[in-house]
Amino acid sequence: MELRLKHLVIIGTGLIGGSLALALRKADAVKRVTGVGRSAANLETARKRGIIDASSQDIADAVSDADMVVLAVPMGAYAGVLEAMADTLPEGVVVTDAGSTKCSAIAAVKASRVDEHRFVPAHPIAGTEASGAEAAFAELFQDRLCILTPDDETDRGALARVEAMWQQAGAQLMQMSAVEHDEVLAAVSHLPHLAAFALVNTVRHAGEAGRHDPFCFAAGGFRDFTRIASSSPEMWRDIALNNRHALLDQIRAFQAELSRLEAAIAGSDSEQLLAEFKAAKAARDAWLAEYGGDA
Amino acid sequence: MELRLKHLVIIGTGLIGGSLALALRKADAVKRVTGVGRSAANLETARKRGIIDASSQDIADAVSDADMVVLAVPMGAYAGVLEAMADTLPEGVVVTDAGSTKCSAIAAVKASRVDEHRFVPAHPIAGTEASGAEAAFAELFQDRLCILTPDDETDRGALARVEAMWQQAGAQLMQMSAVEHDEVLAAVSHLPHLAAFALVNTVRHAGEAGRHDPFCFAAGGFRDFTRIASSSPEMWRDIALNNRHALLDQIRAFQAELSRLEAAIAGSDSEQLLAEFKAAKAARDAWLAEYGGDA
Repeated sequence: MELRLKHLVIIGTGLIGGSLALALRKADAVKRVTGVGRSAANLETARKRGIIDASSQDIADAVSDADMVVLAVPMGAYAGVLEAMADTLPEGVVVTDAGSTKCSAIAAVKASRVDEHRFVPAHPIAGTEASGAEAAFAELFQDRLCILTPDDETDRGALARVEAMWQQAGAQLMQMSAVEHDEVLAAVSHLPHLAAFALVNTVRHAGEAGRHDPFCFAAGGFRDFTRIASSSPEMWRDIALNNRHALLDQIRAFQAELSRLEAAIAGSDSEQLLAEFKAAKAARDAWLAEYGGDA
Repeated sequence: MELRLKHLVIIGTGLIGGSLALALRKADAVKRVTGVGRSAANLETARKRGIIDASSQDIADAVSDADMVVLAVPMGAYAGVLEAMADTLPEGVVVTDAGSTKCSAIAAVKASRVDEHRFVPAHPIAGTEASGAEAAFAELFQDRLCILTPDDETDRGALARVEAMWQQAGAQLMQMSAVEHDEVLAAVSHLPHLAAFALVNTVRHAGEAGRHDPFCFAAGGFRDFTRIASSSPEMWRDIALNNRHALLDQIRAFQAELSRLEAAIAGSDSEQLLAEFKAAKAARDAWLAEYGGDA
């Protein structure tokens, strides 16, 4: 479907929202973009970089003649944003989001006065640990997966428009239920972030207890392993709480895995340890060969 | 100290041993290099790449006119290698190593017939997840830390020669006790590797249980976080077992950290979760600014 949006309103003009606007502009898929956000400085950056045509700090006003509204704010802000736009959303507008947890996004819309049939939950699987309009770039979603989690209530026309939008931004589309989405992402994204935060804190505590600052001895492996611990604490707090049940399952599975390794080490079970490491390396190498791009 | 080695023998001509030889050649700090290893193909690669002048699969013969012998084999091979060289090591030769755990390296030498006074334990903190002579490069140790863990028994002349060698390879030197080394490295290197292996296995099991292959949805964060899970399973098995006590302490500390996060999530303790994430981000960002180079 060829799509040309007349007026795209991006609520939250950060890395994700800003990159989406840039990608759609590049594809000539949008006529006008308004950015909404709390930070005037960030909106000014977005305007200067040509991400948005105009900025607003008034959600109700900004959305009043939109044909597409994208929520690209932290999940914790959904309720307030939805409330602010409920009275002025025009007939036929499509509302979508880019949040990392989908059950909670749907719940927020259902709890609001925004028509849930016009809401299409989406999650583009892309990002860096950087944030803000400064970090946005048009190619962020190129060949990346964007998962849509509509249900039977979702308007088919709205769904088609959101699909077309992400296609024009370069993304590969996939559909699944919100529950499946949240389970899979808990394993592959939310748990790794949590583990990275926990690992850095473990090293921090080891430094407090010992004579040497262990951070002095950290090398490339540590840098890579902990890169995601430089992500936004607020965003990850929201994600962790919004995907509580699936994430708790994965934390417990990870703890069980660590306990297995701990037992193998304590018992000098060389065979078991080697089998675990080999299985992990094989899975990681296979992932890399199929999906991973560079190492 | 200006050093020029007459005959350097590298036991294990992989990433570490091969890169050391290349760095010393580049600095014109060595006249002749012999590479010893079990894989004839790898030795042939090392010869073709100009890493070594000659190769040997006979340790006793190779070391018989060496002035410096570097063990760059997995820790599990130390006992056999030391036994094989014990009878033919010439008077005044220096023996050193590049192993990731130092208490076990010292214990292996003490248990062997090689003179422990001539052995200088060393650990260059550098490496990639690649391995073999093919991966070696002269700049691997440039401005990297190399930790030496001599004790009161270590011959001062031998120590000075090993220090000079690593300086010429570009490394920054530091001394500490073997116990301190092993504790610090358990936190900053061994635990992250173990966690990466465990994390990949957790995702693998989630995939076996669910409808979707979670690896399909892994993005950049997962790639970075798990890069070290593509490391050599054999090498990491050896490291884990050789640094058992310090590593078990760190695994338990990491489990405690995860349990704290788990409790905060289960109890919807938003403040606690944010505080933990912020502390981790601050520590990681501070590390990056001081030591980390690029992000």
